[in-house]
Parts: sequence; C-alpha cells; structure tokens
Amino acid sequence: MSTYTISELNQVKRGPKRATYNVEQINDILDAGFVGYVSYNYNGKAICLPMAYGRIDNKLYLHGSLKNRMLLALIEAKEASMTIMHLDALVLARSGFHHSVNYRSATLFTSITVVENKEKKEAALKCVVDHMIPGRWDTLRPMNLKEFNSTLVIEMEIQTASAKVRDEGVLDEKNDLELPIWAGIIPLKQVAKLPVRDSLLPKQLRTPKHVVQYYKKNKT
Amino acid sequence: MSTYTISELNQVKRGPKRATYNVEQINDILDAGFVGYVSYNYNGKAICLPMAYGRIDNKLYLHGSLKNRMLLALIEAKEASMTIMHLDALVLARSGFHHSVNYRSATLFTSITVVENKEKKEAALKCVVDHMIPGRWDTLRPMNLKEFNSTLVIEMEIQTASAKVRDEGVLDEKNDLELPIWAGIIPLKQVAKLPVRDSLLPKQLRTPKHVVQYYKKNKT
Repeated sequence: MSTYTISELNQVKRGPKRATYNVEQINDILDAGFVGYVSYNYNGKAICLPMAYGRIDNKLYLHGSLKNRMLLALIEAKEASMTIMHLDALVLARSGFHHSVNYRSATLFTSITVVENKEKKEAALKCVVDHMIPGRWDTLRPMNLKEFNSTLVIEMEIQTASAKVRDEGVLDEKNDLELPIWAGIIPLKQVAKLPVRDSLLPKQLRTPKHVVQYYKKNKT
Repeated sequence: MSTYTISELNQVKRGPKRATYNVEQINDILDAGFVGYVSYNYNGKAICLPMAYGRIDNKLYLHGSLKNRMLLALIEAKEASMTIMHLDALVLARSGFHHSVNYRSATLFTSITVVENKEKKEAALKCVVDHMIPGRWDTLRPMNLKEFNSTLVIEMEIQTASAKVRDEGVLDEKNDLELPIWAGIIPLKQVAKLPVRDSLLPKQLRTPKHVVQYYKKNKT
C-alpha cells in the first residue's frame, strides 16, 4: 500500500485526521468521477476550469483544442494541479458552526507533457472516453486524421497528492445534544436518468449493453 | 437585463456560442449549487479547493478557520477566481471526437475583503447555511462568541464573470448519421436521499419542514 510523500505543498493542515495520502484511495476518488478542476495561472491570476480526464496508473489525460488557453498555459508551466470532489451528504448540526458536508476530495500536483506519439495519443483518448462511460470507445467510428491532428492531448503525471474524506454523522457540542433541534445528514448522489436516444437513430438500433450497464449502475 | 463586461480575462474563446455574460443567468448557476472551486496561488502554483458559499446580490461569502491557508492567500492577493459547474448529461456521439457533456459552468473574478462588522458577518454566515439548505439558520442554536470569533468570513464581490452552457443533443458529422452506432444523451442529476436522523435525537422530535421540503425538491 503506497502513499504519496508529504511536503509543505500537499500536507493537509485543516482537519488532518480526515487526510489521506494513500495512492489507492486517491485513485478510487479519481475513478469515481471523470471531471476535475484544473488550475492554471493567467497573467498571475489563478483560475480553474472543469476538464474531463481519464486515468492510466499514475497518469491522467486531458484533451482539448490546439488553441485552448488553459492547456497552452499548462504546457508552458510544465506542471499543474487538479482537484476533484464528490459531494456525499449535507451534515446538518444543531449549531451553524458544526454544519458540514460529507465528501471525498483529492488534490493532485502533476507534471505536464504533450502526448505526441500516435499510439499513446490514441490510447489516451480511448481512456478519456471509456473513463466517462466504460466500453464506449470500441463501439465508435474510428478517429480520422483531421480529428486526431486537431486534438491536443496532455499527460499529467502525478508527482504528489493528498485527499480528504469526511464520512460520518453530525458532530455537535455535548451541551447542544439536549436542544430540540433536528440534526442529521441528507445523503446526496449524482444519478443517471433514462438514456435519451438521438432522434436520427435508426429505429431498429437497440440500446447497447454498455449504455444499459451504465444506466443500471448509476440510476440510484 | 445586465451583463458583465467582456475583457481578455473572462472572454470565452472556445465555443463562444455557448458563452453568456448575463448576470441573472450566472446567478442562476450560482444558486443551483453551494460548492465552488476557488483558485489561489501558493508559491507561484495555482491550486483550487472546493468551498461552500452563499450569495447576496453580486457578493459571495466564504468562511473558514482563521488559519486556512487558502483564505489567507486570497486576503493577501485581494482578488480571487471561482468556478462552479453542474454536470447535466453525458453526450454520446457516434465518434469519439464529438463526445461531450451537457453542463452549466460559471467562472467569476472577484475582489476579496474580510468581513469584520458583526451584523454583516452574521448575515454572511446565515446566508452560507441557508444557501446549503433554505430555512435552516433560524432553527439553530445561535452562534456563541467563541465560534463567531474563530470564524473567518470573506466577501467576494464579483467584478466580472462568464458562463458556458451546453444543453442539447448529439452533434455528429453528417457522414456518420447512417452508421449503426448508438448515439444519445444520458442525463445526470445530483439528488437527495432520505434524511438520516442523528441517533441522539429525542424520538418525539419530528423532521422539520425545511428538511422535508429540501428532500422533496431534490429527491428526483
């Protein structure tokens, strides 16, 4: 069970008991979603934007247009940071002070390189699509050269990371427990609704297995 | 119907047809969630962290510990940027290239000031809790002085902003429409599950109206 090295950069200072540097646990957080918030500097201002990603081992892949301002800034900086969080519950305490949320959050610090190699670039794009919905890539019309050449693919290799997880109930002051105030949690979850077919699909084309599986897995 | 001024900083370059600078539309995106990704610079590295916020007009409020590294960095920088996105659907095209997501995303550029005034600070904290779940604050045990003094409250006044919204079906190449490949969208939504009472609550204490209302509004 490997862990990321702790440094000034990634050490969790607030609520250190909720922190983890465990590689597998952080990978689980990454694999539970496909959109991360990537931070970059624009004229000295820190900005973050949501980006779809895929993961292969300790590397994440992003893609975008060749003119994407953020991707170009990341390439110049040669490094990036990405944060992803899953919101799991509202935590409603008896005092405002102890209100909180349950969540799983990870922040990564990565190097940045452009993926130029053809096979590697294709594997990266497959990984991004299949990270969104497993099994999709192999059912698609293959990429053509124009599409391939107009897509910028970036590899983020994780150098270090940290995560924070809150997964418990209300933590109130002892003195407040007798108060006639409702406390508890309201679980939250991102769910999938019934897939909606493109209106131009041939009527006889059935919903494929990977779409049905995605829906069944995520509908509740 | 007012709009934010467009500048180099907030102009949406990729997919400008999906961009909006409309104040009301951006406020709607802000009000549809309560966690935003706030970016800051730490030793020249851009990092973002999820933060709960509340909104009053063109001002957002954050709170945290007096020692919160990010909040202290924002106070020093006197400005910040925040991004919030709601993921609405997977968009599954016939080619990998046209895969996308439906979403509502806003990026704000704000000034930063510390809220010191007692009434204003209390109003800001009420607004953060009620933004999470409307009607909650007035049911709570009032804040005590120790809690109040150990909480840092930051006002972010929106200086400019932009948003991007994708809300449509699959946009495939004409040549691909005849292919026997399933295409369509899978809607996604963050829903609330049944509230879970704190085990220490007196049995006779009923679930209050604001919790029931939140659940009913968000359960599907």
